[in-house]
Amino acid sequence: MIFLLAVAIQKITPLYLISINIIHNKSLTKHELSICIIIVHFNLIEVKNYRISTVKLALNKQFKLISRPIGLPTRDDFEYSETSIPLLNEGELLVKSEYISLDPAMRGWMNEGKSYIPPVRLGDVMRAGGVGCVLESKNGKFNKGDFVHGLLGVQSHSVSDGKGMTKIDPNLAPLPLYLSLFGLTGMTAYFGLLSIGEPKQGDTVLVSGAAGATGSVVGQIAKIKGCHVVGIAGGQKKCDYIINKLGFDGAIDYTSGNVASALKTNCPDGIDVFYDNVGGDILDLVLTMINLNARVVICGAISQYNNTTPIKGPANYLSLLVNRAKMQGFIVFDFASQYKEAAVQMGQWMAEGKLKSKEHIVEGIETFPETLLMLFSGGNFGKLMIKV
Amino acid sequence: MIFLLAVAIQKITPLYLISINIIHNKSLTKHELSICIIIVHFNLIEVKNYRISTVKLALNKQFKLISRPIGLPTRDDFEYSETSIPLLNEGELLVKSEYISLDPAMRGWMNEGKSYIPPVRLGDVMRAGGVGCVLESKNGKFNKGDFVHGLLGVQSHSVSDGKGMTKIDPNLAPLPLYLSLFGLTGMTAYFGLLSIGEPKQGDTVLVSGAAGATGSVVGQIAKIKGCHVVGIAGGQKKCDYIINKLGFDGAIDYTSGNVASALKTNCPDGIDVFYDNVGGDILDLVLTMINLNARVVICGAISQYNNTTPIKGPANYLSLLVNRAKMQGFIVFDFASQYKEAAVQMGQWMAEGKLKSKEHIVEGIETFPETLLMLFSGGNFGKLMIKV
Repeated sequence: MIFLLAVAIQKITPLYLISINIIHNKSLTKHELSICIIIVHFNLIEVKNYRISTVKLALNKQFKLISRPIGLPTRDDFEYSETSIPLLNEGELLVKSEYISLDPAMRGWMNEGKSYIPPVRLGDVMRAGGVGCVLESKNGKFNKGDFVHGLLGVQSHSVSDGKGMTKIDPNLAPLPLYLSLFGLTGMTAYFGLLSIGEPKQGDTVLVSGAAGATGSVVGQIAKIKGCHVVGIAGGQKKCDYIINKLGFDGAIDYTSGNVASALKTNCPDGIDVFYDNVGGDILDLVLTMINLNARVVICGAISQYNNTTPIKGPANYLSLLVNRAKMQGFIVFDFASQYKEAAVQMGQWMAEGKLKSKEHIVEGIETFPETLLMLFSGGNFGKLMIKV
Repeated sequence: MIFLLAVAIQKITPLYLISINIIHNKSLTKHELSICIIIVHFNLIEVKNYRISTVKLALNKQFKLISRPIGLPTRDDFEYSETSIPLLNEGELLVKSEYISLDPAMRGWMNEGKSYIPPVRLGDVMRAGGVGCVLESKNGKFNKGDFVHGLLGVQSHSVSDGKGMTKIDPNLAPLPLYLSLFGLTGMTAYFGLLSIGEPKQGDTVLVSGAAGATGSVVGQIAKIKGCHVVGIAGGQKKCDYIINKLGFDGAIDYTSGNVASALKTNCPDGIDVFYDNVGGDILDLVLTMINLNARVVICGAISQYNNTTPIKGPANYLSLLVNRAKMQGFIVFDFASQYKEAAVQMGQWMAEGKLKSKEHIVEGIETFPETLLMLFSGGNFGKLMIKV
C-alpha cells in the first residue's frame, strides 16, 4: 500500500533531498515522506524497516554506464548523478569510498560480450575497485569504522551484502597502497610474473608498460629474483624512473627511436620472460626475439582496448612453436586464496627497501571520465586512482 | 699429389660413371681412375683408403635445394642429380633409403633465418626423414643389413657418421609405420597432445588437419583418453573417414558451409584443447570458443607456410587472457628420450585396435617436388611418403 502510494505521488518534484527509505528501499520526496510518517505513526500498515532523519545526509555521487563506448570512452557514455543513500537491510553495510581504482580492465568491462566477468549492464553504476570506510553496518562481519577493499564502483557510497569485501588496516599501510601494491594491481604483477612467467635467476625479463602500476612491480620482483630486467615505457622521464628509482637494468622508450634495435642492445641474450601489458606491434616484435622455452605472460593489451578496427593479432606467433614457448593469459582472481601470502611477501620486500610503489592520485570523483583516459594516453605515472 | 693430379685431369669427360673414391673422397673419371690404379699399384705414394670396383654401382639420386622458394616450392627450387656414391671413412655407414618422409616442416627448413634447426643451405641435399637399409658400415654400432630411421635426406643413398640414426626392426612393424605412427609424426601427435594439451576425461578436444598424419593420431589418442573429439578436415571423404574409421565424435568440413556454426554444433560445451596444425582463420575462430584454462597446442600452421604476404596472427589472442588459457608451441625433438615408451604405448593401442595408421605412399623419388605439394593442397590422405 505504501508502495502504491509512493508510486502514485512519485512525480511530485522533491523540494529537497532527504535520505529515507521505506520498504522496497525507494527514495521518497518530502511529500511522500510526510504521508509515510503519518502512515507509520498511526500504524496504518505494518512497517518493518525504516529510518527517518531530518538532517541533510550526504548524497551518493555516482557514474552509471549508459552506453557502450566505441573507441575511447567519453563523458557521454556515463551519467553522473547525486542520489540519496538507501537504507540498509539486514546483512548489508554502507561504505563511503575513499579511493577509487582506475584500471585498464575497466575498458573491457564496458563492452558487450562474454568475458571473465559479465559486462557492466547499461544503467548500472560503473564497476571499479576501491577502498573505503564502513559508515553503517547490519552485517555481523563488519563494524562501523572498519576499512574495506572491494568492488565499490565509481560512486562515493555503496551498499553491499559484504561479499567480496576484505577488511584492511590503514595502520599497516596507507589506504592508496591497498589499491596499488597490496591491491589487484600488485597481485596481478606478483602472480602473473611468478606463477605464469616463472622467472629463473639469470633470465632476461622484459616488461611492457614498465612504469605503470603493474609493470613497475613486475620489474622490481624480477630484479629481486636475480633476473636481467628491461622495461619498455613511454618517454624519457618514465625510462629514467624505472632505471634510477626502481633498479631496472635497461629501459626502452617506445616513443622515440628504433624499438627493435633497442631491444637487441638491451637484451643481448634474448628474452626468457615477456610480461606484456600492451599488445600490438611490440608483442609482435618481441616474439621474434624470445628464447627457447620462453614464457609470454599476457596480462593485458592496453594498446588494443580502444581499437575501432580489428585487434592486431601477433603475426609472429609461430615463434612459439620454433622456440617451444608459451603465451599464457591469467586472471588475478584465480589466485585469491594466495593474496595474503603475496601481501606479506611484498610488505617484507617493501620494508627491506627492495620494492617501491608509486600512486598517481587525482582529486574528485567528478573527474572520472577524463581521469580514466590517462590510462590510455599514458598520462598517468604510477597506479591511477581517484580520491573521492 | 693424387689430389693435384685429379684436379689436373678433372675436365676430361667421363665415359661412364663408376663408384670409386680415393683420399678426399673425390669421384674420379675412368681416366683419373686408370692413373690412380697405376699410382697405387706401383706404390708411388702411400694410399690408405681405397676401393676399386669395375661393376657399375648404383647412383645416388638426390634433390638439392638451390633456391629459397617464395610461396609454394617448385621443381626449379631444386636440382636433381645422379652422382656416384662416396667411399666410407672409418665410423661411417652407407644407407639406401627405402621411404622418404614428406612433412610440412620441410617448407620451414627451406627458409632463411633462425628456427629450431638451421635452414637447409643452398646447394645441400634437401633435408628429410627416412627409413632405409645399411648397405655398408664402418661404424661399430651398425651392421650391413640393419634397418635405420634418421634424417636421410631427399636422396636414394646417404653416408653418415651414424649420429641421429636409430635402428628399427622391420619384423615388428612395416617400414612405412616407422615414418608415420612410430616416426616423428606419431611422436608429434603423442607428446603434443599429452604433454602440452593435457587432455582430461570429458574434455572437448578439437583437432585441425584431422585426417592428416598427425591430426588423425591426435584425435584417436584423445578418444582413448575419454575425450569428446572433433576434427576439422577438408572434404566429405576425409570427414567420413575420421568419424567412421577413426571414431571421432564429430567432423567439420572446412571446405563447405559455415565453420563457426559447425563448431558450435559439434562443441556444445566449448573447447578445452585445440591441437592446431593449420593456423590462420580457423585458429582465430577457435580462440573465441575456448573454455577456461584451455590449452591451444601450436603444432603447425600449414595454411601459412607458403604465404607471400605476412602471416595472419590470431587477432583473438586476448581470449587467452579472458580464459586464463595458454597457447604453446613444442618441438618433438625435445621428447627424444621418451620416444621409446611412446612407441611401446602406441604399439599396444594399435594391437588392441584402438589406434589406426594410414599412409599415403607415392612411388619414385623423382616425383619429389610435386609430391611435396600435396601437403599444401590437402591432396594427401594419410602420412605422405615417397617409396624410393
